[in-house]
Amino acid sequence: MRGMTEGEDNASRPQMEIEDTHLTRPIRCIVKLGGAAITCKNDLEKINEENLDTVSLQLRQAMINGSDFQKVIGMDWSKRFGKLEPSCELDDFKDQSKLDANSFIVVHGAGSFGHFQASKSGVHKGGVNQPLVKAGFVATRISVTILNLEIVRALAREGIPSIGMSPFSCGWSTSERNIASADVTAVAKAVNSGFVPVIHGDAVLDEVQGCTILSGDVIIRHLAAYLKPEYVVFLTDVYGVYDRPPSEPGATLLREIVVREDGSWSVLKPTLTDMNKQVEITVAAHDTTGGMVTKISEAAMIAKLGIDVYIVKAATSHSLSALKGEVRGSMPDHWLGTVIRYVHGGSL
Amino acid sequence: MRGMTEGEDNASRPQMEIEDTHLTRPIRCIVKLGGAAITCKNDLEKINEENLDTVSLQLRQAMINGSDFQKVIGMDWSKRFGKLEPSCELDDFKDQSKLDANSFIVVHGAGSFGHFQASKSGVHKGGVNQPLVKAGFVATRISVTILNLEIVRALAREGIPSIGMSPFSCGWSTSERNIASADVTAVAKAVNSGFVPVIHGDAVLDEVQGCTILSGDVIIRHLAAYLKPEYVVFLTDVYGVYDRPPSEPGATLLREIVVREDGSWSVLKPTLTDMNKQVEITVAAHDTTGGMVTKISEAAMIAKLGIDVYIVKAATSHSLSALKGEVRGSMPDHWLGTVIRYVHGGSL
Repeated sequence: MRGMTEGEDNASRPQMEIEDTHLTRPIRCIVKLGGAAITCKNDLEKINEENLDTVSLQLRQAMINGSDFQKVIGMDWSKRFGKLEPSCELDDFKDQSKLDANSFIVVHGAGSFGHFQASKSGVHKGGVNQPLVKAGFVATRISVTILNLEIVRALAREGIPSIGMSPFSCGWSTSERNIASADVTAVAKAVNSGFVPVIHGDAVLDEVQGCTILSGDVIIRHLAAYLKPEYVVFLTDVYGVYDRPPSEPGATLLREIVVREDGSWSVLKPTLTDMNKQVEITVAAHDTTGGMVTKISEAAMIAKLGIDVYIVKAATSHSLSALKGEVRGSMPDHWLGTVIRYVHGGSL
Repeated sequence: MRGMTEGEDNASRPQMEIEDTHLTRPIRCIVKLGGAAITCKNDLEKINEENLDTVSLQLRQAMINGSDFQKVIGMDWSKRFGKLEPSCELDDFKDQSKLDANSFIVVHGAGSFGHFQASKSGVHKGGVNQPLVKAGFVATRISVTILNLEIVRALAREGIPSIGMSPFSCGWSTSERNIASADVTAVAKAVNSGFVPVIHGDAVLDEVQGCTILSGDVIIRHLAAYLKPEYVVFLTDVYGVYDRPPSEPGATLLREIVVREDGSWSVLKPTLTDMNKQVEITVAAHDTTGGMVTKISEAAMIAKLGIDVYIVKAATSHSLSALKGEVRGSMPDHWLGTVIRYVHGGSL
């Protein structure tokens, strides 16, 4: 399978000056929690609690060295379901050494949060002065903020110093739906202070059309371009990228995709022969429903920065390996997932 | 009663450059929702729902001209208590003209949210690298975010296009607990687009001590300095500023306080004679429990900018009058509250 990433995009080369993105702690990994992985897609505003808890645990294991041997000290001291969390014992902190933690940034999608509000009002199409769009903008932000808060709390319960950061509050805005202004200084400062920013797809102001939706995928690409993580992991609800919708018979998991300087990409593993045409058509059809070509394009643009991208099923042994960086370099045969990486030069 | 405002403070003269605070819609009013007015002070993380609903209604009446004759179109389309709000009917928007709304900014305190987490961990004292402080920082932000979300939702249910904006996300930070960096561009842009920013006291990074608590009162003073509202209203749980704790026998409501160029202030109404000394002592004692001198000082610094400040009991007819700006200029006798205003020159 071959393809091209989308044309050059403003997102990776914003016009504004970035004053201070100096990282005293380099970013190990930016993780995308796919909306499909952490929410129940067909159930309005319902979190997939089981997945979210497992994802939080795995993030802790990947971030905090030696975390398996240390008591988890929860950082959510607020009431849940009307009851106080039993997690705030000062004595626990006496034994808590300063944890040697890898710097992570979490970006999440919306899943069954926000989409209803955004699509009903057409926030993505702009026109923020119209009463319906304005109301939908407010409603969308409420919905995604509810989700963001729940994710921050789930991570905090696992002892991850998570900090919700909203693109709108960060002052990020778009112009004709491309990022126009997205200063990552506040994110970098949070990382430098040892926090894990938890950022979400959001309704934002657009200089041309008034407003739009800034997706988690675009955010992650922007952050990757400026903050240069060692690797990026997309947690999703399937094992990776397939040559056709994974529910179809004969769907093949694409294990390794390489991206070249000119933005073109090909499947390196498994070896696909004489089926380019057919696969391209299938993928195109897939795209209208599942957005796989878009996802590959986004991932390919990150890979082009020299940053390996892993697309993997959330809450599995495969996601844990990917988050820990264990499949970097050589990918074991039993690991299920898709890696997208950059190759210098044009030939393979 | 006479007093002095605190010494010159960095907050009103930040060092950083503000690039774009141009308001296409001048701010009519910045409102402080005092923590004591909207939460149940002695009940951990409990909102005073009745007060919050009334405050939201009054804000709608003050913001939106002719709102009494127009159907309220709720802007919270998310589930509450597990059920979907019945507020999103597209047909309703057909009759909804573009509302002629006054620009407001809402800032709220924490009340029974955040304080427990902050004081238990000592976030205000700094030391963000210590595990307890880091955990408390995360826990504090979770708690105040829960409150912020509930306030945004209450306002949205009243048809107010409210947008939660968190100081930490906005990249605001302090230096030795004074504001060091607090670019209000994102806030101004939200106002220009017709939204009502809802900002809260927050845990933030501090350049010197690592972290601290940025209070709602300091935020409101900073916003007032840069965005020059016509007036500022503090909604609280008593009728205004008293000469001693209002629960004490003989406590007198101070109706009008004037502030002079040099920062000194005096009570103009009621006329207090020969009791300066006594009142000063009483107020000083009051301060350790209720922070009234601090509150007057904060208000006086806003008044010095030429902006009248009204301190009034939330969810009363008096607060509605103040929010609507009806008591500006001449203060009717039946209005209960305290106004703090600036007078040119030193003599009265």
